[in-house]
Amino acid sequence: MDRFLVISSDCHAGLPPERYRDYLDPKYRPVFDQALPIQLEATRAAGKLFLVHDVNEAWRKGREQALTGAWDGDERNRVLDADGIAGEVIFPDGITEMNMPPFGAGLSLPTENVVPELQWAGARAHNRWIAELCQMAPERRAGVAVVPALWDVDEAVRELRAARAAGLRGALIPCAWGKLAPYHHPKYDPLWAAAQDLGLVLHFHSGAAAPIEDYFGAFPPPEGSAPLPGAVGIYISEVAWYCARPLTFLIWGGVLERFPRLRLAVTEGTSIWVPEYLALLDFRYDENHFTAKLGDYRSHLTMRPSEYFRRQVFLGASCMPRREVEARHAIGLGNVMWGSDYPHPEGTWPETRAHMLEAFRGVPEDELAAILGGNAARVYGFDVEKLAPLAARIGPEKSLFRA
Amino acid sequence: MDRFLVISSDCHAGLPPERYRDYLDPKYRPVFDQALPIQLEATRAAGKLFLVHDVNEAWRKGREQALTGAWDGDERNRVLDADGIAGEVIFPDGITEMNMPPFGAGLSLPTENVVPELQWAGARAHNRWIAELCQMAPERRAGVAVVPALWDVDEAVRELRAARAAGLRGALIPCAWGKLAPYHHPKYDPLWAAAQDLGLVLHFHSGAAAPIEDYFGAFPPPEGSAPLPGAVGIYISEVAWYCARPLTFLIWGGVLERFPRLRLAVTEGTSIWVPEYLALLDFRYDENHFTAKLGDYRSHLTMRPSEYFRRQVFLGASCMPRREVEARHAIGLGNVMWGSDYPHPEGTWPETRAHMLEAFRGVPEDELAAILGGNAARVYGFDVEKLAPLAARIGPEKSLFRA
Repeated sequence: MDRFLVISSDCHAGLPPERYRDYLDPKYRPVFDQALPIQLEATRAAGKLFLVHDVNEAWRKGREQALTGAWDGDERNRVLDADGIAGEVIFPDGITEMNMPPFGAGLSLPTENVVPELQWAGARAHNRWIAELCQMAPERRAGVAVVPALWDVDEAVRELRAARAAGLRGALIPCAWGKLAPYHHPKYDPLWAAAQDLGLVLHFHSGAAAPIEDYFGAFPPPEGSAPLPGAVGIYISEVAWYCARPLTFLIWGGVLERFPRLRLAVTEGTSIWVPEYLALLDFRYDENHFTAKLGDYRSHLTMRPSEYFRRQVFLGASCMPRREVEARHAIGLGNVMWGSDYPHPEGTWPETRAHMLEAFRGVPEDELAAILGGNAARVYGFDVEKLAPLAARIGPEKSLFRA
Repeated sequence: MDRFLVISSDCHAGLPPERYRDYLDPKYRPVFDQALPIQLEATRAAGKLFLVHDVNEAWRKGREQALTGAWDGDERNRVLDADGIAGEVIFPDGITEMNMPPFGAGLSLPTENVVPELQWAGARAHNRWIAELCQMAPERRAGVAVVPALWDVDEAVRELRAARAAGLRGALIPCAWGKLAPYHHPKYDPLWAAAQDLGLVLHFHSGAAAPIEDYFGAFPPPEGSAPLPGAVGIYISEVAWYCARPLTFLIWGGVLERFPRLRLAVTEGTSIWVPEYLALLDFRYDENHFTAKLGDYRSHLTMRPSEYFRRQVFLGASCMPRREVEARHAIGLGNVMWGSDYPHPEGTWPETRAHMLEAFRGVPEDELAAILGGNAARVYGFDVEKLAPLAARIGPEKSLFRA
C-alpha cells in the first residue's frame, strides 16, 4: 500500500442543541425545554468571554456545509475522505460549535452548577445518538460514551455496559473531581473492573483546567466580569497538566496495578510532557534518602510508574506539532496516536495534509504508520482489513513524507 | 582559592514554639497561650499522618545538639562550618522540626483555617526573631521574611519595608491563593513594585500542594481518617508543580514585564521541570493556528516567557540530584542555586560533601562555582570578599570534584 491508513484519535460530533430532545428520556423533556434557551445563552456568553467571535466566524465562512458533518453522517464521510482520514474516535462536541449535549454532559463534565440526575440524562441522550451515528459506519467510527462517573459508580458501570452493548469503544470520564472523591479512592474499583472487562478505553479529554476563579481573580466571578489579563495564556499553559493529572492518581493509587488490562487515553492533552512526567514519577519511585521521612509509599506497586504507563496509557495527540514528533521515542512510539480534532477550528482540518507534512516529513515509514493509525487501530479495535480499501483511496501518500 | 564558596539557597530556622511568645505583639500573647497546645497537637497529628515518626526519630538520634542550630546562632555556625557552608538563605522551619511560627505563619502560608490578623501577628513575630538571628552574622545569613501577602496588599508592602529595614533579603509569599485573588490580579502591583524597589527577592517555597481533600478522598476529611493509599506518591509528584505555578500567573499576567527588576525564587521546588516548562510557555507564546480562536493573549508581553524567566527567576535547587545537574544548561546556569535544606531530614546535612560529590563530580569548575554559591551571592547580595576567608577554611576542595 502506498498510502497511510489514518485514524484520528480525536474527532468530535454533536447534535444541534434542540435535536438532543428526541434522544432524552421523555420525562426530562419538559425541563429540557425550559433549560435550552438558558443553556444557549450561557454558551454564547462563555464564547464571548473566552473565544474570539470574529476569528471563528471568519474561519467558518465557506465551510458551513462541511461543518454539518458534526452531526450528519454522510457529510462527515465526505469531509473525512477529503481530509485523508479513514477512521476516527468520536468525542462529544465542544463550546466552539455550540452543539454540546444538554445539562452539562459535554467534554468538561463539570461537577459544579450541574444537577447530577440531569447530567446523567444528557449523557445518555448523547450516548444513544452517538451509537446511532457510529452504527451507520462501524468500520470507520469508534464512539466514546459520556459517563459522568463521579456521582454514582454503580450507575457508571451500568452505562459502560450499555455503551458496550451499543457498540461504543470507550468512555469519557471527568478530568477533575471538584469536591467529590478523587480517582485513587477504592470506591471506583468497580468502574475500573468494568472498563477492563468490557474492553472500553477510558478517556480524559482536554477542556477543564483550574477553577474558574483562578482566571477571573475572584470567587464567584463578579457578574458580567471578564477574565483578568493573562488568563488565556495561563489556561493554555496549564490545561494539559489538568488533563493528565488523573494518571498520577491512578498510577500511585495502584489502580493500574490492580487492573492490568485497563486502558486509559489522554486526549488533546498534548504529549510533550510525557518524557519528563515519567522521569519524575520513576525518580520519586526510586529515590530513598529524600523521601525516607514519608515512609513506605510504593510497596503496593510492583512496577515503576513508567511501566504502567507504557502498558496502559495512550495519548490522543491531536494536531501533533513537530516538537512532539521529534520527541516521539521518549513519548512512546507505541503510545502516541495522532488526531485531527475535526470539526474544531484549532484542529488540522481542512488542511490536514499540509499539517501532517510539516510535522512528520522524514519520519521513518513504520513509525509514522503507527502514529497515524496503527496504534489507534490496536487500541480501539479497528478492523484494518476492512479499512484498507478506503485508506488506499484517500490516505496521504507515503512518498510525500520521505525526507 | 582551592575551595568553593558555598551558599545554601535553602536553609530553615525557627524557635521552639513557646519561645515565639516573646516576639509577638503583647496583645496577641493571651490568644497565643490558648492556641499553643492546640497548635502543637495539630502539628503532632499531621506528623503522624504524613511523616514516619520512627524513621525521623532514628535520623535525629545523636544529632540532638546539632539540631539546636535550628534556633541557636552559635551552634548553627558550628554545624554549617562542618558542613562546608559559608552562607545561607534562611526560611522559617517546617513540620518535621515542630518549630513553625505560630498561627499558620509557616512555610505553606495557608489561606484556610487561619485568622488573617493572627497569621500576620505570627509572621511579624518570626520576622523580628529571624532578623535578630541574621544580625548576629550578617555576612553569612540572608533572612527571608514571612509575608502572608494575599490578605492585604498595603499591609504586605509595609512588612516588606520593615523587613528591608531590619536587614532581611527577601520575603516568602504563598504558593497558593485558595479563594483569594491570584497573582495576575492588578491589585498586587504595589507589592511587586515594593519588592523591586527594595531589592527583596520574593519566594515560593515548596510545601503546599493540592487541596487536602485530594489526598483524603473527601471534603472535609472524615474525623481521624488517614490519606488514601497512594496519597504520598501523588503529593511528591505534584508538589513541585504547585510551587512553580505562581510563575505562570506572573509571566502571563505581565508582572515581569511591568516590573523588570523584580526577582523571584522557587525554592525546594526542584529545577528539572524548567526546560520543558519554558519550552511550553514559549511554544504557546509563538503558536498561531491552534490558539487563534482565543484572540490576542500575548501582545502585552514584549518578550517570550523564557526571557522573563532567565532575567528574573531563580531556583533554590535544594539537594540537587545528578539528573538535575546534568540538565544545568537547559535549566539555566545563571538561574540555579544549590541548597542543603538544613536542618531537615530530607536535606543533605550532615552528609553534604558526599551528596555534592555524587551530584557534581566532573562539572567544570566555573559552572560549579556559580551553582554552589556564585549565583546566590549575586541574587542575595552576599559580600564574597568578606566570606572568602571562611570559605577558604571550610569549603569543599575543588580538587575533589575533578572527573
